Amino acid sequence: MSKKVVLAYSGGLDTSFCVKYLTVEHDCEIHAVTVNTGGFTQAELATMEEKAYALGAKSFAVVDAIREYYDECIRYMVFGNVLRGGVYPLSVSAERMFQALSIIRYANNIGATAVAHGSTGAGNDQVRFDLVFNTLGNNLEIITPIRDLRLSRQAEIEYLAKHGVEYSWEKAQYSINKGIWGTSVGGKETLTSHEALPDAAYPSQLKKTDPSVVTLNFEKGELVGINGETFEHPSVAIQKLESLATPYAIGRDIHVGDTIIGIKGRVGFEAAAALITIKAHQLLEKHTLTKWQMYWKEQLGTWYGMFLHEAQFLEPVMRNIETFLSDTQVNVTGEVFVKLMPYRFELQGIKSEFDLMNSGFGTYGEMNNAWSGDDVKGFTKILGNQTKIWQFVNQKKEEA
Amino acid sequence: MSKKVVLAYSGGLDTSFCVKYLTVEHDCEIHAVTVNTGGFTQAELATMEEKAYALGAKSFAVVDAIREYYDECIRYMVFGNVLRGGVYPLSVSAERMFQALSIIRYANNIGATAVAHGSTGAGNDQVRFDLVFNTLGNNLEIITPIRDLRLSRQAEIEYLAKHGVEYSWEKAQYSINKGIWGTSVGGKETLTSHEALPDAAYPSQLKKTDPSVVTLNFEKGELVGINGETFEHPSVAIQKLESLATPYAIGRDIHVGDTIIGIKGRVGFEAAAALITIKAHQLLEKHTLTKWQMYWKEQLGTWYGMFLHEAQFLEPVMRNIETFLSDTQVNVTGEVFVKLMPYRFELQGIKSEFDLMNSGFGTYGEMNNAWSGDDVKGFTKILGNQTKIWQFVNQKKEEA
Amino acid sequence: MSKKVVLAYSGGLDTSFCVKYLTVEHDCEIHAVTVNTGGFTQAELATMEEKAYALGAKSFAVVDAIREYYDECIRYMVFGNVLRGGVYPLSVSAERMFQALSIIRYANNIGATAVAHGSTGAGNDQVRFDLVFNTLGNNLEIITPIRDLRLSRQAEIEYLAKHGVEYSWEKAQYSINKGIWGTSVGGKETLTSHEALPDAAYPSQLKKTDPSVVTLNFEKGELVGINGETFEHPSVAIQKLESLATPYAIGRDIHVGDTIIGIKGRVGFEAAAALITIKAHQLLEKHTLTKWQMYWKEQLGTWYGMFLHEAQFLEPVMRNIETFLSDTQVNVTGEVFVKLMPYRFELQGIKSEFDLMNSGFGTYGEMNNAWSGDDVKGFTKILGNQTKIWQFVNQKKEEA
Amino acid sequence: MSKKVVLAYSGGLDTSFCVKYLTVEHDCEIHAVTVNTGGFTQAELATMEEKAYALGAKSFAVVDAIREYYDECIRYMVFGNVLRGGVYPLSVSAERMFQALSIIRYANNIGATAVAHGSTGAGNDQVRFDLVFNTLGNNLEIITPIRDLRLSRQAEIEYLAKHGVEYSWEKAQYSINKGIWGTSVGGKETLTSHEALPDAAYPSQLKKTDPSVVTLNFEKGELVGINGETFEHPSVAIQKLESLATPYAIGRDIHVGDTIIGIKGRVGFEAAAALITIKAHQLLEKHTLTKWQMYWKEQLGTWYGMFLHEAQFLEPVMRNIETFLSDTQVNVTGEVFVKLMPYRFELQGIKSEFDLMNSGFGTYGEMNNAWSGDDVKGFTKILGNQTKIWQFVNQKKEEA
Repeated sequence: MSKKVVLAYSGGLDTSFCVKYLTVEHDCEIHAVTVNTGGFTQAELATMEEKAYALGAKSFAVVDAIREYYDECIRYMVFGNVLRGGVYPLSVSAERMFQALSIIRYANNIGATAVAHGSTGAGNDQVRFDLVFNTLGNNLEIITPIRDLRLSRQAEIEYLAKHGVEYSWEKAQYSINKGIWGTSVGGKETLTSHEALPDAAYPSQLKKTDPSVVTLNFEKGELVGINGETFEHPSVAIQKLESLATPYAIGRDIHVGDTIIGIKGRVGFEAAAALITIKAHQLLEKHTLTKWQMYWKEQLGTWYGMFLHEAQFLEPVMRNIETFLSDTQVNVTGEVFVKLMPYRFELQGIKSEFDLMNSGFGTYGEMNNAWSGDDVKGFTKILGNQTKIWQFVNQKKEEA
Repeated sequence: MSKKVVLAYSGGLDTSFCVKYLTVEHDCEIHAVTVNTGGFTQAELATMEEKAYALGAKSFAVVDAIREYYDECIRYMVFGNVLRGGVYPLSVSAERMFQALSIIRYANNIGATAVAHGSTGAGNDQVRFDLVFNTLGNNLEIITPIRDLRLSRQAEIEYLAKHGVEYSWEKAQYSINKGIWGTSVGGKETLTSHEALPDAAYPSQLKKTDPSVVTLNFEKGELVGINGETFEHPSVAIQKLESLATPYAIGRDIHVGDTIIGIKGRVGFEAAAALITIKAHQLLEKHTLTKWQMYWKEQLGTWYGMFLHEAQFLEPVMRNIETFLSDTQVNVTGEVFVKLMPYRFELQGIKSEFDLMNSGFGTYGEMNNAWSGDDVKGFTKILGNQTKIWQFVNQKKEEA
Repeated sequence: MSKKVVLAYSGGLDTSFCVKYLTVEHDCEIHAVTVNTGGFTQAELATMEEKAYALGAKSFAVVDAIREYYDECIRYMVFGNVLRGGVYPLSVSAERMFQALSIIRYANNIGATAVAHGSTGAGNDQVRFDLVFNTLGNNLEIITPIRDLRLSRQAEIEYLAKHGVEYSWEKAQYSINKGIWGTSVGGKETLTSHEALPDAAYPSQLKKTDPSVVTLNFEKGELVGINGETFEHPSVAIQKLESLATPYAIGRDIHVGDTIIGIKGRVGFEAAAALITIKAHQLLEKHTLTKWQMYWKEQLGTWYGMFLHEAQFLEPVMRNIETFLSDTQVNVTGEVFVKLMPYRFELQGIKSEFDLMNSGFGTYGEMNNAWSGDDVKGFTKILGNQTKIWQFVNQKKEEA
Repeated sequence: MSKKVVLAYSGGLDTSFCVKYLTVEHDCEIHAVTVNTGGFTQAELATMEEKAYALGAKSFAVVDAIREYYDECIRYMVFGNVLRGGVYPLSVSAERMFQALSIIRYANNIGATAVAHGSTGAGNDQVRFDLVFNTLGNNLEIITPIRDLRLSRQAEIEYLAKHGVEYSWEKAQYSINKGIWGTSVGGKETLTSHEALPDAAYPSQLKKTDPSVVTLNFEKGELVGINGETFEHPSVAIQKLESLATPYAIGRDIHVGDTIIGIKGRVGFEAAAALITIKAHQLLEKHTLTKWQMYWKEQLGTWYGMFLHEAQFLEPVMRNIETFLSDTQVNVTGEVFVKLMPYRFELQGIKSEFDLMNSGFGTYGEMNNAWSGDDVKGFTKILGNQTKIWQFVNQKKEEA
């Protein structure tokens, strides 16, 4: 009896090879599953389906994981203001985890005997797929032909041709990965340490130059509306924001970071909605949270981003961090005004009923009734006590 | 006998009032001292001197603290990539500490019986002056007329006029504080939560639109050269960089933060050289430091910035943090390429002999000889062990 | 009309003086309120009541805050394994916060116009009372005669005598503060840096020498039972444990720590139930939580203890930390076996259905089927990648 | 030509098997090297030598690594007060790293073509050896017969017997590992979660019951003398302290922790000198360091211990942490008085010229001239500002 295999399928050369190869050589029944985390249009999905069956897949399915991805992950990245290395909104690594989760749930549901993915042995994605499959897979076998066979692209193409599959598999100059939380762009310059990506390498090009201002409506830390219009789900608001900001070619940058396997990697990206959402959210927090709430949010948010990147999404501490982050958001409600301009945006300010700044309590730089100059003198005296004692003890010692 | 008082003098209305008031009313001998941390031209200093004597100061002195400020503080802010709230290079708070330090040393040197400053009772600066004076002042009296008398500007002007001082004390629309590490801009819009500063509020205006690329030369974490030209001191390199970047109106932003006294404050700033230096330095670190070096640097750098902002520069832990940060910089040597454009800059890349990315050891995304796909399989299996056990235990429990 | 004042009353010399002094000199109507956080017997409370009326109090009330103190604070100290300086279970500082909270709520309820406490100007307690009263007091006046008058004990005694109050106010050799979470012992030796407290200084003396073993039953991190017997409330279980452990004179130590006002302080304590509960709880966590859950719990627990000690219980971040800590406790359920012996106890081990150690998954030091030696080889290779690259780059450099 | 192999040799069954097996089956020239980190007597080393040659080793050498181990590691564990899980002084894991380091240096020195160790595939030690060998081994082959062959003890014994080696290889009831920083005891009860080790399982038994007090002399954080007697090297002071404390059977405990490979492990230990040194050192720090120095030392010390345990000693951040820790120790000089008693010790107090507690500046709980009650009122008012504003804003909101 043939093995029932669920394959994480993207329609690219590697996973197409997997369909054919596993069907032909290993007598597998391939259930090709594409998990959509915001990167595919309906037309693309239709093409992928057609191709999957042409390659010999037993079934093809699309799992629309956008809302689940938002509900279980993106919202926490917003709460935690997660930017790897201070710049990168985890566009790829987070969605890869959710693709892996969708695949393994699908496999468990249909009673598969194995799961397969098309990752090579050189990158991070293999770790993400393997780790999720290992943890939730109830000992399902993991099949990874590309990693195990170490074939060149040419060899894969020839194998497919030999078996009657003659699509055009031209390698694009840049490897592009698109999802709701950003699009990564890798290749050529990103393989060096010193070259920037040329303008043309980015999928979205500048189309609008007149500045405009958008109002982002946050409720308990989530983007629920834009310019006063509310949406059925925050993921829709994000997509709306993307459509407003992308014509300005906002949100491009290059991320240099540490891969799970310990080497350094460099990748370009464009992520207008993700960057604007996070920066606007963070500004709102600066007005509505206390200093120490922000301090600890930063600690835990940084860790959350690191573990998410490193395939540790299922570690129980991640649930605890999510609970903490959610708990800090009760007052993160209000409007943020953002000016969009070519290649950049400016945070203009916020309005919130929870604003700790203009509370009528006292204004920075102006005398008020809440405390006096004498109070501050006392404050400073006590605040400096320990340093002063230290100074006193050390001076006494030096003089001795 | 009259008191010998060293006054932290800036030539503005408040400290001018202090000279006259303390001389006339309290029989003080005023030694007006201006500490230059990069914000005053020679012409301005000459005017300040003239004014000080006209007001009745016994002596006037300028302490040039730029190099000391760099050596004892700015370099550590660069090592620690210190940006408060992710945006603000501590332009004002750090230099205020060094002004206080210079004043108290001056006072100790000339055997003063008191020190005076012109801070009000509403802001952070009083804490900085008081704390430094308390700690290093050997019980010198601290005199603060503005804080104690709570006079209005008008009352100060009238008092001065009554005593024959008739300068024009028009209040500028914005309060500007300039130093080598940036210029702050406060007033009007920054007193609200929702308005951005208008373009014209910033001292430096856009004068150049053609992009240009500069090469920053770092050695052990310090900016030692620009475009291959080296300078006698990093502070000179910073000033050079400022002169190259300011025509692009780079480095403007608004900082919303927590003041020492617990209320929120908002301030605009422009700090081209500071921002470019820090961001370029950080990129070089991403290539030359390990993941955990960066993790701990971020922890300690954030704390360093917070304590510096909060007048805790003399706390002994600050010396320990400086030692740590310095120790991490041994390999942070190389070139960083920065493209300057109107209102923004782009980090193009780096070259360093310590680059951990293109080391010939292995390249991200490509198969290599340093490890195999099987190694990563084993790695992932072990990496996921604890989460898998947790899953196993909890599942067993749920099924029971 | 006389002021309606709620006084935090303990029956000691200072607060007794306050009753008389405020009644006589300031025409106050004194409502003496004693908050019981586990330190007073019924007999003691009866004496306090009698004394309060004799001193001229308008009313006297006892607020039994034990359960509230447990529910809102002690449970989180257990979840966070909070021991200041690694030794001290915050016996006094935590309960002082809850006394302050009870007092201000009482004052708000009866519509008082002022609150009063008997703290001096030299310690931490004044900060705790003031901060809570300031924050929740809706601008109620805070009256602190002892701090303001700076009277000696003798002067207070004479004042009371003059007004017909002739209790015996002998100063005990040691100042003792008893509550459910421990008893502090200060005086004489604790004022030095080098002397230990003599055996006799501790309230509880050794009465039992035969070892015994108790089983502590934890449920979601809370002590719910002892030796299989369950209690109506964890605070009762704690008191039961105290009664079992105290005869062994367990839980004595000296804490050296930083006071809120910046100087070092030293205090002895005995806290058998608190120490045993925390250590047993922590052992159970070592078996049931993952490494990173424990890492972050330690971070946040340490901070929680510091802020609680420093009167910052009302800071919003404390609520976020409590939420985090609670969330980590879902699996901290099981039995802990503790052997009680003179002056010490030994944690013998635990049983839990959530034990991650003996899960049938694999046992440390034994070969098993979950992974192979080759998996560990791969793991180690990848784990060491970055350090190896660093070594490679630096060696290449040195050789150059 | 036969391979030149350096074997990490302990004289036990596994490494004895390795000598014979590699010589006979793989034509290796075995250089057996024993690294002494404080666990072997001269007599034991002589027996090991004899055995090594009898087994067919080409050479045998002892590397005395005690001082190097102290200088490069133990001192930092003291500076950092490193106790895993709050209890365990890393007795085994730290020394294993130094054994690996000695072995690889030895191998590089004699120009070996391979290194071998006798670890199984089930524990932590394989990771420590592999990681050090991988990093510093210049691509030397790593040979691990025990891990690869997965033989039972019986099979190893039979193989040796077949080749004429007939030592008695009785398995001790407990596996014991002794070094200068403690002795681990594993087996039987430690394989369960609920049983304590019996008294007899510990190598050192109670021999002295009369309490005694020792004075430990620290200089810049290092134990340099005992009872006023100074030693040529701190490692000698540690051994002296061990000889004084061991007769009291001090320092026994059980550690439950996370292994490198992700499962939980449990091990008994006795480590009198390590525990007393660390606890005494920490007390001295409580008197001589500021609150924030201790805070950050704890952060970095905890990390140092974790990474040391997890074979990451060569990570560059470890050098940075060591530099930080050293820098904090300049004032950690003074005497600590420790009372030794059966099964426990008591820290009585300290004397230090750097004591921040009794500095003549002000004493906790007593009024003084350094500040007034009014200063503390002002301090508290400002300290509570942000919480009060938060309260104000939220209350206003609730009322709305």
